[in-house]
Amino acid sequence: MSGRKVSERTIRRISHYARCLRTSRANGDRTVTSSWLSGQCGISSAAVRKDLTIFGEFGKQGSGYDVDDLLVQIENILGTCDSPSIIIIGAGNIGRALLKSGLEGTGGYTYSAIFDIDPDLVGTKCAGLTVKSMDDIHNTVSGFKKFIAVIAVTMGEGQKVVDRLNEAGCRSMLSFNLEPLKLPEGVEIRYIEVSTELDMLTHSLEK
Amino acid sequence: MSGRKVSERTIRRISHYARCLRTSRANGDRTVTSSWLSGQCGISSAAVRKDLTIFGEFGKQGSGYDVDDLLVQIENILGTCDSPSIIIIGAGNIGRALLKSGLEGTGGYTYSAIFDIDPDLVGTKCAGLTVKSMDDIHNTVSGFKKFIAVIAVTMGEGQKVVDRLNEAGCRSMLSFNLEPLKLPEGVEIRYIEVSTELDMLTHSLEK
Repeated sequence: MSGRKVSERTIRRISHYARCLRTSRANGDRTVTSSWLSGQCGISSAAVRKDLTIFGEFGKQGSGYDVDDLLVQIENILGTCDSPSIIIIGAGNIGRALLKSGLEGTGGYTYSAIFDIDPDLVGTKCAGLTVKSMDDIHNTVSGFKKFIAVIAVTMGEGQKVVDRLNEAGCRSMLSFNLEPLKLPEGVEIRYIEVSTELDMLTHSLEK
Repeated sequence: MSGRKVSERTIRRISHYARCLRTSRANGDRTVTSSWLSGQCGISSAAVRKDLTIFGEFGKQGSGYDVDDLLVQIENILGTCDSPSIIIIGAGNIGRALLKSGLEGTGGYTYSAIFDIDPDLVGTKCAGLTVKSMDDIHNTVSGFKKFIAVIAVTMGEGQKVVDRLNEAGCRSMLSFNLEPLKLPEGVEIRYIEVSTELDMLTHSLEK
């Protein structure tokens, strides 16, 4: 399935299905219906069925979808059957909050390491991990098959971090920093921007 | 300009222009060129000029755009010339990290209040604000002309919070919770979902 072009919107919906299926599996459910997924995700049943048939015939009319089978298929599409390690760069407010909140039970990811450039923070503990120096990054990530770096550093420090990550072979980043970051070809970055989300909500309030 | 249909993608780009313009204003710059905005935002100059002409003729060929004028026009479009108050629901890891990180210098917003249901947290201080009880929400927001609620509560508590916010007249929410939340018509919600962003990056890594 990998290499197949799937739109960002579809991946987003499928990611939501995966989350709901993990919850239902944790609750001991064996099967789910498209109308249940529809209700959980706020997407029409017809759209859910259409999404799921893109990748093959998972469900049987009337009897619903087998939770385990569907989740395996979806995780194959997402690539989360073999989840990348997640590292956090920046042990400030946001970095520490992400680590404390954790990712278990949602996407099947775990935070594997946290780094900072501040010598006062290096060596301190947070949610069971010891904050490492940025100098250790190459050494740490060399043990990972694949990884994603979450960037949560002070404004103005983003590009330096990205350059260090590139040297360490990082191909995938999620940035909480608002700075526009320059990346070499083939490296993917996504941004989580609270102030842009607020701008979009504010614009809607004006209507 | 309000009421005009502007696409989400356009609003997102305009939000980025506004952020760059605030930085250049803080640096004492009087004018900026479309190629400067292009470089800062990672968007082509032609696309920047096209975006800006949608809303009228702000710039003069060759002399660039007046920073103050352009920012006023953009803030009129976004509605951030008269920014809504931002409240946080949930004084846990994420809520406190957001408050400590602040919003000044980015979107022109400020966090006005933080609430929690946990009596152990109510009354504690965080970044200069005292955590209020959810029972005070109606009283607090009645003093605001308009407001947006940022939801950062424990998994499973989201819908209860949304219901309380609806009772208090909230029309706009930004949720860090992964639960799908049910809202009455006319209430807008946006989600910040770290695990979905990671799923999208993981899918790209597979290609």
